[in-house]
Amino acid sequence: MPVVTASQESGLIEATLARLGVPAAEATIQAAALVEADLRGHASHGLRRLPTLAARIGNGVIVPGAVTKLDWHTESVLRVDGQGGLGPVVGRRATTALADRVQRTGVAVAAIAGANHLGILAPYVEDLSRQGLTALMTTTSEALVHATNGNQAIVGTNPLAIGIPAPGAPVVLDMATGLVSMGKIIDYAARGEPLPAGWAVDAAGQPTTDAAAAARGGAIAPFGGGKGYGLSLSLELLVAVLTGTALGPRVRGTLDTDQPATKGDLIIVFDTGLFTEVAAVGARIAAYLDEVRATAAPGQEVFIPGDRARAARERRLAEGITVPDELWARVTELAGDPVA
Amino acid sequence: MPVVTASQESGLIEATLARLGVPAAEATIQAAALVEADLRGHASHGLRRLPTLAARIGNGVIVPGAVTKLDWHTESVLRVDGQGGLGPVVGRRATTALADRVQRTGVAVAAIAGANHLGILAPYVEDLSRQGLTALMTTTSEALVHATNGNQAIVGTNPLAIGIPAPGAPVVLDMATGLVSMGKIIDYAARGEPLPAGWAVDAAGQPTTDAAAAARGGAIAPFGGGKGYGLSLSLELLVAVLTGTALGPRVRGTLDTDQPATKGDLIIVFDTGLFTEVAAVGARIAAYLDEVRATAAPGQEVFIPGDRARAARERRLAEGITVPDELWARVTELAGDPVA
Repeated sequence: MPVVTASQESGLIEATLARLGVPAAEATIQAAALVEADLRGHASHGLRRLPTLAARIGNGVIVPGAVTKLDWHTESVLRVDGQGGLGPVVGRRATTALADRVQRTGVAVAAIAGANHLGILAPYVEDLSRQGLTALMTTTSEALVHATNGNQAIVGTNPLAIGIPAPGAPVVLDMATGLVSMGKIIDYAARGEPLPAGWAVDAAGQPTTDAAAAARGGAIAPFGGGKGYGLSLSLELLVAVLTGTALGPRVRGTLDTDQPATKGDLIIVFDTGLFTEVAAVGARIAAYLDEVRATAAPGQEVFIPGDRARAARERRLAEGITVPDELWARVTELAGDPVA
Repeated sequence: MPVVTASQESGLIEATLARLGVPAAEATIQAAALVEADLRGHASHGLRRLPTLAARIGNGVIVPGAVTKLDWHTESVLRVDGQGGLGPVVGRRATTALADRVQRTGVAVAAIAGANHLGILAPYVEDLSRQGLTALMTTTSEALVHATNGNQAIVGTNPLAIGIPAPGAPVVLDMATGLVSMGKIIDYAARGEPLPAGWAVDAAGQPTTDAAAAARGGAIAPFGGGKGYGLSLSLELLVAVLTGTALGPRVRGTLDTDQPATKGDLIIVFDTGLFTEVAAVGARIAAYLDEVRATAAPGQEVFIPGDRARAARERRLAEGITVPDELWARVTELAGDPVA
């Protein structure tokens, strides 16, 4: 399997997007979002998404160069209409506007509709926290998860990300609220391996260990039982009620190639320094994180949210990103295709 | 076991607090918080807390009549210093100030330090959502939960509550981030029943099914594995970084009788109507919640967050609250004690 550097991967993505009419500055931002996912080990949100993005641009449901409408409804509430633009482009415009504004207001919120898939959330909150800001971000996504006691997909995998400034590196949580990702279930299916019990139901609503059956219209279990389901549903509602976007099965446009994106994104940013004495709190956080790590059971390691992604990122920056053969063939063909 | 009405319970609590010098208006608010917990089936946060509250007042770590400092740092950031006041009194003052302010600012945040235990969070977000507001609330608590791969208590059970206005009744999530409560483990110990595997470790950090051993300096597992642990730790940091309060083992004052409360509370309120067209979104939410319920597996019921608490509340309002004999003896003695 080919091993590529981050800059090779972003070069290929940028070239592909340029051929599709994406302005260079936008292509750079979109490429960075995909590369970050691959570097951190979230291949399902990396280069693998490029063919879908390309098809969506071709089908007019991603609009390169779309003007993002940034509308401050109050001093601290930003309504964002992405107008079909690339997700990371809209997301970055929103976080930049929030980071500027929050110095004055202490808290600022962006409610985003009409943006395509933002990609993994960690880089957004991480970048905000590197500026000393505290951030919370969540987004809706296609209904792939069943309710506790339910047997059909009805809530999104709705990720939640939290970024906390801390000495050294920010603490960065980024978790989906499904027990596993559909990407993982598809990987099991590709390998012909059975799923662990309790991961999924099939399209008929029956619990299944058949990965292929789960992937064909089945549903993933929520993480953490009833609490995880309750959290996932509450995030679905929180995003919808503040962004006016779609709910449950009406969320479209991040996995398919021809439907407008109907999900929403919510970003809340706090100017940490307006709340507390940052240096003092930072020192206490650093000491506490050391304490948390020191509670490891014998032979185990306790991780702080963000640790593993950071380690994975550094390893792949040094050693490169391994790309499956079929994907590499597909994206190099896409990059080299004559413009239709 | 005695069965009492909600008003009998609140009368007894108010009488006890009055004898301890708590102003009548504050006693009413504190009593309501305890009664709400009992009505909703969270006995560990109900009348059972009264002896601890009384001892804390006696020891000067709860200060009846304390003036709550409400300091708007910006138009939308409220720093609250409870000055040792009763938790629900401080909490209600904060939510009232936020509900007033948010009509203008769209979002408002209270960062609370120096308040005693607020009680269960659901009533706060529920009341805000009954006013059409969307609310998110979290709080730190004594370190009782171990990290994933850890074997000592190092994070709080840090509950998260989310309130979403919806036609009929708000959707109200209120979940602790421990797998179970320490109260439940103590109940197992009292009945001499073994704990299910994976619930807890003992004081030596060994996994245990001995409930009494777990309760004596052991630790509860986080809910939902690594994701739940990551969420719990992130909430611990989020509260601490925005309120300047204590972290991990330095959180005190909600379970003991003589330590000042060092935890923090964070409340974020959104004026839903400033974000979206409330009537339209409300109709969509109602339709979606029906869809979610309709996904129930055969013979099962899918619950919406808040459903079960509301049903439990209505049942106990009609049928009364059952109080264990030893607790009833203790609180009636407390209510009748001559003032020291």
